Amino acid sequence: MGAQGPTEGPLTDEELQLAARNHGMPLEALRYDITPSGLHYLLVHFDIPEIDESSWRLDIAGNVEHPQSLTLEQLRTRLSRTLPVTMECAGNGRARLRPRPISQPWLVEAVGTAEWTGIPLRDVLREAGVGSNSVEMVFTGADHGVQGDVEHDYERSLPLDAAMRPEVLLAYEMNGRPLEPQHGAPLRLLVPGWYGMTSVKWLTRVTLVSERFEGYEQAIAYRYQKDEADPGEGVSRMRVRALMIPPGYPDFLSRRRLVEPGIVTVRGRAWSGNGDVVRVEFGVDETWTDADLQEPVGPFAWREWTLRWDAAPGEHILSCRATDAAGYVQPVEQPWNYQGMGNNLIQKVPVTVGRS
Amino acid sequence: MGAQGPTEGPLTDEELQLAARNHGMPLEALRYDITPSGLHYLLVHFDIPEIDESSWRLDIAGNVEHPQSLTLEQLRTRLSRTLPVTMECAGNGRARLRPRPISQPWLVEAVGTAEWTGIPLRDVLREAGVGSNSVEMVFTGADHGVQGDVEHDYERSLPLDAAMRPEVLLAYEMNGRPLEPQHGAPLRLLVPGWYGMTSVKWLTRVTLVSERFEGYEQAIAYRYQKDEADPGEGVSRMRVRALMIPPGYPDFLSRRRLVEPGIVTVRGRAWSGNGDVVRVEFGVDETWTDADLQEPVGPFAWREWTLRWDAAPGEHILSCRATDAAGYVQPVEQPWNYQGMGNNLIQKVPVTVGRS
Repeated sequence: MGAQGPTEGPLTDEELQLAARNHGMPLEALRYDITPSGLHYLLVHFDIPEIDESSWRLDIAGNVEHPQSLTLEQLRTRLSRTLPVTMECAGNGRARLRPRPISQPWLVEAVGTAEWTGIPLRDVLREAGVGSNSVEMVFTGADHGVQGDVEHDYERSLPLDAAMRPEVLLAYEMNGRPLEPQHGAPLRLLVPGWYGMTSVKWLTRVTLVSERFEGYEQAIAYRYQKDEADPGEGVSRMRVRALMIPPGYPDFLSRRRLVEPGIVTVRGRAWSGNGDVVRVEFGVDETWTDADLQEPVGPFAWREWTLRWDAAPGEHILSCRATDAAGYVQPVEQPWNYQGMGNNLIQKVPVTVGRS
Repeated sequence: MGAQGPTEGPLTDEELQLAARNHGMPLEALRYDITPSGLHYLLVHFDIPEIDESSWRLDIAGNVEHPQSLTLEQLRTRLSRTLPVTMECAGNGRARLRPRPISQPWLVEAVGTAEWTGIPLRDVLREAGVGSNSVEMVFTGADHGVQGDVEHDYERSLPLDAAMRPEVLLAYEMNGRPLEPQHGAPLRLLVPGWYGMTSVKWLTRVTLVSERFEGYEQAIAYRYQKDEADPGEGVSRMRVRALMIPPGYPDFLSRRRLVEPGIVTVRGRAWSGNGDVVRVEFGVDETWTDADLQEPVGPFAWREWTLRWDAAPGEHILSCRATDAAGYVQPVEQPWNYQGMGNNLIQKVPVTVGRS
């Protein structure tokens, strides 16, 4: 987070600069099981690094019995796994908060689902031999910059048990093609179920450590804080959320939706990092009806929901609200934290129903 | 454009909504001859339409001898052409203008270069037989919405001579793969040298007309206007522009650049819709030096420029300025028009040079 605290004021030039670089997934793309890769949300923390694949290596270092320095070719010849995974940015929804934390100003579009191919991290770690007093793995990316006056490579850690889960991948393909540069080429970490900051892009090193990692992106950024002084809790798994494809068609500037009266099939997706979504409700002016759920796209991916809505002429506010197997339900009133993390307030879509 | 005129005020919620959907090309991607497709700038005017390729047809209609209704398969079996083309949004730079026209708030990133594959439009038109009193072709997209209180499909026209140029394509591939939905699948128009609004996506119909087309996106939007009452001139070819990869590394929030002292190779790209770029100058605190030019990536694509800069400690403003074969030079003072179109003010990159 920046030096500037949350604000009630208008959008800043800094936020616009970030919004011009990064991008969400236009919500009509919720129609695809697998998001076309150019539509998947994208947040590049510093710059997309320039990496020469022929000299690139993944180092497995620190507290291991057999340190490794692996080429992409060595990694690509191993037994791979392909998984559809829904990924969401931890800051999704931030720009709707009042007061508004100053950072990438996401509305609700910072999500996407891709088919990732890679090798299970634990296969590589077992060969390297994890030292017995290891507690965490630190993942280092090649992207470099300054945040909060601290110059650093982007680095995040995971507890050993989370990192050794079978679904955690070292991914080199997205949607059946080599990673594009902005998605972490040649290799990225992929941690299904967790917010996107965990899935370190442009991975260069995995370091086994015997103490908790206290780097900037772990100990300062990505925390649930009440205020600046609060050390807070680390952000981890994605909270349950549903989104809908805004029905009808838009006004270019306001994005206000115009809908023809009569039966409208409303479609959306819902996901959670804490287990299956078990219920989605669709709200019209705060009257809620259960939606139909399709099968999830995969164990770590969203599921579609649909509902036939009889659209009556007039102004309406449409909403959706998901519940997951762990019992979590999306809030209808705004929760708030200092960095604007893990927001899963229900989506609201104002529509005008009328004959055009 | 919206109902609201240009403003000196802060960014509006409407502008943020557009910035969250659309996206520029992060400037470090100027390093690639061909922009990875997910990094190419993207502006979706209304919504990305949902198109069933099996029932989709391209209709050649209006003032033609043999009206056509072509399947994608019929189009794909014809003789194709592949061209690298630099495309820029006509509104690029709008958000830096004072006062600021309210629309998609581009800074300078709304550009990209792709390799497009398709069939020359004129081949199809010659088979259809253009009626002798035709003056324009109207291109209709499947995207639908409201702008300025006018409900319409996105439609633009071209004079016959511009449309019949050999480089104008009906494109179905981008960077060697079928178009992704957001880039106009299954088929889009591609008009090299012109600003992006001309290259109509999700093309469904080409209509030969005997009078000038006066649709919203032609007669109201995309005009060089002095003020709201001025009918203005239509926007057409891209004005000459150079951009640089901001050197050094960024601060996450401010994007301020930090550069190590000493020799820095500065790189960028330059292009024009009015002929080759013949000169690029690099400015340090308004002292200008000629940069080295590489060969253009193609006759309708940008060329790289480089320069070795001896970075002295302190604060500097870096700039670049291109000149094209037609003699146009980028302005150093802000030009202005009511819709913020065709802006090609020189880029300015503030940097801090110092030992970190």
